[in-house]
Amino acid sequence: MGNAFFDLSSAHAEYGRCIDDDRLEQWPDFFTDECLYRVTTARDYREGLEASIMSAWSKGMLRDRVSALRQANIYERQAYRHVIGAPCAINEAGGHIRCESSFIVARIMRDGATDLFATGRYLDVFTRENGALKIAERVVVCDSHRIDTLLAIPL
Amino acid sequence: MGNAFFDLSSAHAEYGRCIDDDRLEQWPDFFTDECLYRVTTARDYREGLEASIMSAWSKGMLRDRVSALRQANIYERQAYRHVIGAPCAINEAGGHIRCESSFIVARIMRDGATDLFATGRYLDVFTRENGALKIAERVVVCDSHRIDTLLAIPL
Amino acid sequence: MGNAFFDLSSAHAEYGRCIDDDRLEQWPDFFTDECLYRVTTARDYREGLEASIMSAWSKGMLRDRVSALRQANIYERQAYRHVIGAPCAINEAGGHIRCESSFIVARIMRDGATDLFATGRYLDVFTRENGALKIAERVVVCDSHRIDTLLAIPL
Repeated sequence: MGNAFFDLSSAHAEYGRCIDDDRLEQWPDFFTDECLYRVTTARDYREGLEASIMSAWSKGMLRDRVSALRQANIYERQAYRHVIGAPCAINEAGGHIRCESSFIVARIMRDGATDLFATGRYLDVFTRENGALKIAERVVVCDSHRIDTLLAIPL
Repeated sequence: MGNAFFDLSSAHAEYGRCIDDDRLEQWPDFFTDECLYRVTTARDYREGLEASIMSAWSKGMLRDRVSALRQANIYERQAYRHVIGAPCAINEAGGHIRCESSFIVARIMRDGATDLFATGRYLDVFTRENGALKIAERVVVCDSHRIDTLLAIPL
Repeated sequence: MGNAFFDLSSAHAEYGRCIDDDRLEQWPDFFTDECLYRVTTARDYREGLEASIMSAWSKGMLRDRVSALRQANIYERQAYRHVIGAPCAINEAGGHIRCESSFIVARIMRDGATDLFATGRYLDVFTRENGALKIAERVVVCDSHRIDTLLAIPL
């Protein structure tokens, strides 16, 4: 468990760093080839609604998402800063590690204005590929339902 | 020390998750039967004032607090998101572990508006009960003296 | 690596605590005698500009900085609260440990108003002195270029 805690903490920190460094092309590599990435709200999640702000089922779809962002050039208008809490509710079974983690994401606009962009939790299933942790499933549950639906950069 | 660090980090994350998930009925179980839970401000704490925004001396009092909150239905108006820093100033002696940790709590209102609700530090004394860490003492020192005195949800 | 992770997390937490507790006189002791401490912005850093909001090359210069702050009494007007993410990009070689970490700093004004003061990352080189980690180099890269140039308290 101690080991999983360390590995998960590191994986979270590298994930946030990748996005905050604007290395979006590397972001899909945190996932397994077949994966689930879904962004939803606490309200929809609680009520079991399938509606998602964004969802993808493969690394290829995540890559497409990044290409679209790059073409739209929307990403240039802002930067993010993730701070991710320690993983908890860690449950290791059958080669998978489930865990939950809180996040706070600040957004820095081109003019320098900084605000609290999103808060929420990651509901994750990790798996090991050649010793490295990969995300098989990440449901991003945003606390607020007032999320910019454009959602330029992944969370 | 490494072990205490891991255990304390996990305990903090589970504590924050319990409140943020609105599982307030389980919140008292993070404490020992006799315990101290106290919320105060940096200014009052620095000057040694006993005045507290809230205080409780037993798990029973914490339970009463939760019942009162549920009846008042105030909690429904908002949600919290804790991000808790790594524990530091760890000192293990006589079956107790003292430590300090920074926290930032965002508040998400029913309409989705999100703000920085509270920042501060936990001054903790943990003890082990059947292998699990329990809080014998938690003094929540809020940095700002402008804390909503109603303080619907525990910090 | 697991050990470095724990030691770095602890060092970060103690560093933030020292500043947030307003024990600025102890702040230089986190550094080696000869060191680099530099505060810059993401934009300047990306473009390789040498311009810094603040820089120091020795523990003595850091001490001078604190003395100047104390004399100006500016620090009394506000307090900080650091939350520092888990260290990542850890690279240990030749007695040095390089790592990066996200930070979010809230500022609490004398009247109690709290805002998101700064976000960014620490680009660090640590070294061990008598078993304790010391900062040989800390480049503080602020995400926003709109940083209070006075920058009363160190980040």
